[in-house]
Amino acid sequence: MTFISFTTDYGLADGFVAACHGVILRAVPTARIIDVTHLVPRGDVRRAAAVLAQTVGSLPRGVHLAVVDPGVGTARRAVAVRAAGGDLVGPDNGLLIAAAERLGGVEAAVTLPVPAAVPATFHGRDVFAPAAAELARGTELTALGAPLDPATLVRLPALHARLRSDGALEAEVLLVDTFGNVQLAAEGALLADAGLRPPGRALVWAAAPGTGPSLGAAGGTPVTELAVGVTFGSVAPGELVLYVDAAGMAAIAVRDGDAARTLAVAPADRLALCRAGTGV
Amino acid sequence: MTFISFTTDYGLADGFVAACHGVILRAVPTARIIDVTHLVPRGDVRRAAAVLAQTVGSLPRGVHLAVVDPGVGTARRAVAVRAAGGDLVGPDNGLLIAAAERLGGVEAAVTLPVPAAVPATFHGRDVFAPAAAELARGTELTALGAPLDPATLVRLPALHARLRSDGALEAEVLLVDTFGNVQLAAEGALLADAGLRPPGRALVWAAAPGTGPSLGAAGGTPVTELAVGVTFGSVAPGELVLYVDAAGMAAIAVRDGDAARTLAVAPADRLALCRAGTGV
Amino acid sequence: MTFISFTTDYGLADGFVAACHGVILRAVPTARIIDVTHLVPRGDVRRAAAVLAQTVGSLPRGVHLAVVDPGVGTARRAVAVRAAGGDLVGPDNGLLIAAAERLGGVEAAVTLPVPAAVPATFHGRDVFAPAAAELARGTELTALGAPLDPATLVRLPALHARLRSDGALEAEVLLVDTFGNVQLAAEGALLADAGLRPPGRALVWAAAPGTGPSLGAAGGTPVTELAVGVTFGSVAPGELVLYVDAAGMAAIAVRDGDAARTLAVAPADRLALCRAGTGV
Repeated sequence: MTFISFTTDYGLADGFVAACHGVILRAVPTARIIDVTHLVPRGDVRRAAAVLAQTVGSLPRGVHLAVVDPGVGTARRAVAVRAAGGDLVGPDNGLLIAAAERLGGVEAAVTLPVPAAVPATFHGRDVFAPAAAELARGTELTALGAPLDPATLVRLPALHARLRSDGALEAEVLLVDTFGNVQLAAEGALLADAGLRPPGRALVWAAAPGTGPSLGAAGGTPVTELAVGVTFGSVAPGELVLYVDAAGMAAIAVRDGDAARTLAVAPADRLALCRAGTGV
Repeated sequence: MTFISFTTDYGLADGFVAACHGVILRAVPTARIIDVTHLVPRGDVRRAAAVLAQTVGSLPRGVHLAVVDPGVGTARRAVAVRAAGGDLVGPDNGLLIAAAERLGGVEAAVTLPVPAAVPATFHGRDVFAPAAAELARGTELTALGAPLDPATLVRLPALHARLRSDGALEAEVLLVDTFGNVQLAAEGALLADAGLRPPGRALVWAAAPGTGPSLGAAGGTPVTELAVGVTFGSVAPGELVLYVDAAGMAAIAVRDGDAARTLAVAPADRLALCRAGTGV
Repeated sequence: MTFISFTTDYGLADGFVAACHGVILRAVPTARIIDVTHLVPRGDVRRAAAVLAQTVGSLPRGVHLAVVDPGVGTARRAVAVRAAGGDLVGPDNGLLIAAAERLGGVEAAVTLPVPAAVPATFHGRDVFAPAAAELARGTELTALGAPLDPATLVRLPALHARLRSDGALEAEVLLVDTFGNVQLAAEGALLADAGLRPPGRALVWAAAPGTGPSLGAAGGTPVTELAVGVTFGSVAPGELVLYVDAAGMAAIAVRDGDAARTLAVAPADRLALCRAGTGV
């Protein structure tokens, strides 16, 4: 059984996703394709990388095809990457790195050739899906293209998350999910390090991306207080709760509500969190 | 061949659905998963129960995994249910009952254990999908958890549908579909009992949920008259038609239009219907 | 391995797509279903026909089931069609023709019987999916229904695309995709015939459907100038580019933007294009 996961920003209203499924199934009729999502906001490489990285650990071993590719047809490289736990195929724009790290880290990588004859706008169908199919049928990674130095792979900017000397946890918003749950770039363990354990209370500050180390210490947007719990049900409907989510990350939800809207935050915004009453 | 149907309110923009697919396929690589829908409005157990119940009769025999679970992580039970026509897995909040009845009725049920180590927010991935996979691979229901008395399973409130002594049919709105078609909680046979057979004309009253037995007799919202037909094509574009829908239920559509918007009704609203000219 | 592609306007919020999957899989448990799209705007036969036609060439050989069927339950015929490259099943409203032509042209066709007992509103589940399953399991086309003369199949109006005597290319908008890219009904070769080769500059006029041959020559909406390139990356972010798209058709995009919104055009609108400086 050969599994290929598939992540794009193609949407579901056109035939783009099906065309890639078709290319794979023509090459490997027995392949099983698992659609991760095709509703990544157009060109949002950062979100796609995070969703794939947080999903890949639940998927069967196989090839992970991901195409969020605003640079299609330009000089950006097309790549295939081998990790201990699976192969990844996509554009060299940082999309694959976090997932590769979840799969044990990049062991080798190649540049996929882009035939001159293929259209310059649909490398998902014409370059990446064929490469994923080749890997799925057992072709060696090194047979797909010229080796490249993994150190030269494009990486997304490092995520911001740290425990400050004043004891507060400061982190950027990594993802907002369908339900409006706000996931921070901080591992759940950092919550405990900041003294934020259930049951408890926390204070939260929020600010635009790039805000400096004084966030929370010197103001920022008005403070909100919220519960520290273990799930949505830890609080009453409509109330905020800080918890460790199912991906192991610090997160804030509103029970039966939308925390991103309640807090008026979006991905890349910064939050500072401390125990209520500690007077950071 | 092992089939698992899958119904949730997870949406399609995150990796939640794929993570559950992955958990199933890691356990049972040959399983075939049929996605019923993942666009149930968040926490709308009533709608999810109706959609699953009306779809399950068309699906191959197998396991039906459904997770619309606003109580995840609270004391609500996680359950697996055996019916003559298949197994069902999900939260004990009424979601599974209507489908189980379509499959011959609940024969046995167990409470699924929730390991203390799993996150409290993603039982779809960590509790329900693993249980569905176990059933799909042939594990006995009784091996999955402690037996429970089916009479203790949580049930949704009974749907309102009755033929009144004045001959009118009174029923609540069960579902509004993608096209705005308004499905009533009344079996199609009740239409005939109310004298509403094609071709004919009917009068309709509408009111908010909980409206008493005087609906239609003493007013309510203004009366609309509409045709009784067999399909959308029974009327001209833009016109209302009362018919028996493909699930066998009384329904109202607007040809090439949106009946829910035209009638300004939503699920749980009540309608009264009688033959035009009978002067209810 | 038996493949069935599936295209509808059913949406993804109800169980309609799953019911059809179920009907197919109950009949042919080993069938593999490739969902092309189920988000065709309701009743938009023209769009569905174009999406299917542009996708079918990437799909494995098999049966193509397509149901965008505003006439369901009326006198319109239900048909199955055989082309050299595969079979197609759906309503006789023009939906299947363009795809059949991509597959080598219609060789034979039959009218599918509609049993009197089936509901008049869900022929996807009750007529078309069963027929597709029959073909998938190897039943002869001619065993499914009464032969019909392919010349009597309903066809959509011919698309408008021509090279004018003044050298301009005039064509209607065929599709607007998820990204707002505007695809014309003109094959890419017509662009070259009009002298529109990269790198270059073009002028574009736009007008409502049905505009006569004077479009562009005598005004119409204000002129826009744009680059002729090979991909989005041929221009700076926010700029328009005219190119040959991945389906081989003339198209206009805005890099990282929405060309349909920028040009204020929709499917069936007409555009005229000529080389900048040629003074059409």
